[in-house]
Amino acid sequence: MTAALIGLDWGTTSLRAYLIGTDGAVLDRRASARGILAVEGRAFPAVFAETVGDWVKAHPRLPVLASGMIGSRQGWREAPYCPCPAGLADVAAAGVDVAVPDHGSLRILPGLDWRDAAGVPDVMRGEEVQIFGALGEAEGERLVVLPGTHSKWVRVANGRVTAFRTFMTGELFAVLRDHSILGRLAEGGVDDAEAFARGLAMAEDMDGQGGLLHRLFSARTLPLFGEFPQTATPSYLSGLLIGAEIVGALAWCRAMGLEPEARPLTVVAGEALAGHYAAALARFSLESRVAPADIVAAGLLRVARAGKLIG
Amino acid sequence: MTAALIGLDWGTTSLRAYLIGTDGAVLDRRASARGILAVEGRAFPAVFAETVGDWVKAHPRLPVLASGMIGSRQGWREAPYCPCPAGLADVAAAGVDVAVPDHGSLRILPGLDWRDAAGVPDVMRGEEVQIFGALGEAEGERLVVLPGTHSKWVRVANGRVTAFRTFMTGELFAVLRDHSILGRLAEGGVDDAEAFARGLAMAEDMDGQGGLLHRLFSARTLPLFGEFPQTATPSYLSGLLIGAEIVGALAWCRAMGLEPEARPLTVVAGEALAGHYAAALARFSLESRVAPADIVAAGLLRVARAGKLIG
Repeated sequence: MTAALIGLDWGTTSLRAYLIGTDGAVLDRRASARGILAVEGRAFPAVFAETVGDWVKAHPRLPVLASGMIGSRQGWREAPYCPCPAGLADVAAAGVDVAVPDHGSLRILPGLDWRDAAGVPDVMRGEEVQIFGALGEAEGERLVVLPGTHSKWVRVANGRVTAFRTFMTGELFAVLRDHSILGRLAEGGVDDAEAFARGLAMAEDMDGQGGLLHRLFSARTLPLFGEFPQTATPSYLSGLLIGAEIVGALAWCRAMGLEPEARPLTVVAGEALAGHYAAALARFSLESRVAPADIVAAGLLRVARAGKLIG
Repeated sequence: MTAALIGLDWGTTSLRAYLIGTDGAVLDRRASARGILAVEGRAFPAVFAETVGDWVKAHPRLPVLASGMIGSRQGWREAPYCPCPAGLADVAAAGVDVAVPDHGSLRILPGLDWRDAAGVPDVMRGEEVQIFGALGEAEGERLVVLPGTHSKWVRVANGRVTAFRTFMTGELFAVLRDHSILGRLAEGGVDDAEAFARGLAMAEDMDGQGGLLHRLFSARTLPLFGEFPQTATPSYLSGLLIGAEIVGALAWCRAMGLEPEARPLTVVAGEALAGHYAAALARFSLESRVAPADIVAAGLLRVARAGKLIG
């Protein structure tokens, strides 16, 4: 197959590169831990050359697109956030071009920003390309969930992102497990399904009970009273936080007049995390389907086409 | 004045000792950082002797009482939690006696536990003595707030603790400031009153907006869009978390049929923290008064009297 595009998903902690065919297939790939925080002295051109230098030499006419934190203030060149609603063509047009070694240029795509009715801003960088890859320009209203350090719940209408909220679920889990009394007292993985389900149930029972700041303490007291072993605390905490995210996101959807039960949600995540979320969403009677792998490549190809970088 | 009691407030990170007069006045005091986590090899008798050995020698007939984490499983001797409702006499009777060097014995007081309607346990150790010191056996319904690492909101009826909730406000603030992206991007104190007030206002606007897990991210996005300087982030985060605690606690009070606006709240805290909470409570139209210093000494004396350890 003919190569159509070189795509980079360049985030905070990882760098993924794709040689993408005309039909969106991934012809070759590279992955490293050289996210922008691991690139010293802003040596982005050198890392670029080491990662895809042979590709750009072999395909000198291919456009090159990058999404993710590489377009942040801490990245190679800032690509200011593109306001919502935003679709493929908006993102393509708002990219910034930088010269790259032995090639023409690299287009760095912007992230998206959205402000709620109170004017509070929210942002994403990189997820928008995953969303485009997962949905394409599918018609109608869609809801996409991207779990992770900073989980996103995203409303998409006819291929354009119209609203979204970030939840600090993954980061809160990590800091509580690694640095709080909840983690100091508990070694263990997140594979205890019973404790995970109990955490989810606790998240459903927060109203009038003190809210999340109180319910977190149950991760201390329940094992203290022998209700589950200390080793199950991380699983319980994971369920409680993912449950709190879902409760908060559903309340937001309903406040917008969107009934999330009426449609299958699209979950964009690796296998393990997607499994956790599918189980959690099912508990809340929400049908979900997991997006296929390599949707970043598919999304970058769609952006390139919408921006007429390729035919 | 005659000494009536030797009292120890022996917590996780600090140890405070009081020589207490018959009227509750503090005749002498010691304080150190030798909380139970700083006592290696469980050498509690030695630390006891170093801290108050001269007092027990000079006053060989005085009873000695200790409250706090010294009565936990990680302490000198476990004093099992006393179930609520619990008053002075209950706590005195549930203490456990341990032999101490060159003296008779030391009575280690229990903490309290309480379970909500769903059976979720909550616990305190040491705060109950502060509450007794602040309120005595005051008649009627009272609400006491003890801000800190694990803030407590406590309902007291006729001198007995009837219900309480813990909020992990202080610990969450510390782990987010020290270990999350919110802190990594922001150096600064918590003395920016405007950012603190803005955090409080954000906590009031969480329903239908994604809840606390989402609103935490505004501590990242508001400075990103220049709405306040990065150095104000800790103040904003402090306001957001204290506000979320108050919102959760008020919802709990109302679910119990308790109207917190109808009575002045008693706040038990050091000067700086009490000031933050008084400002925050005032924003929620809640009148509060700060308990005087040395209420632990007053509380221990009341427990000793109720337990007939002294006349």
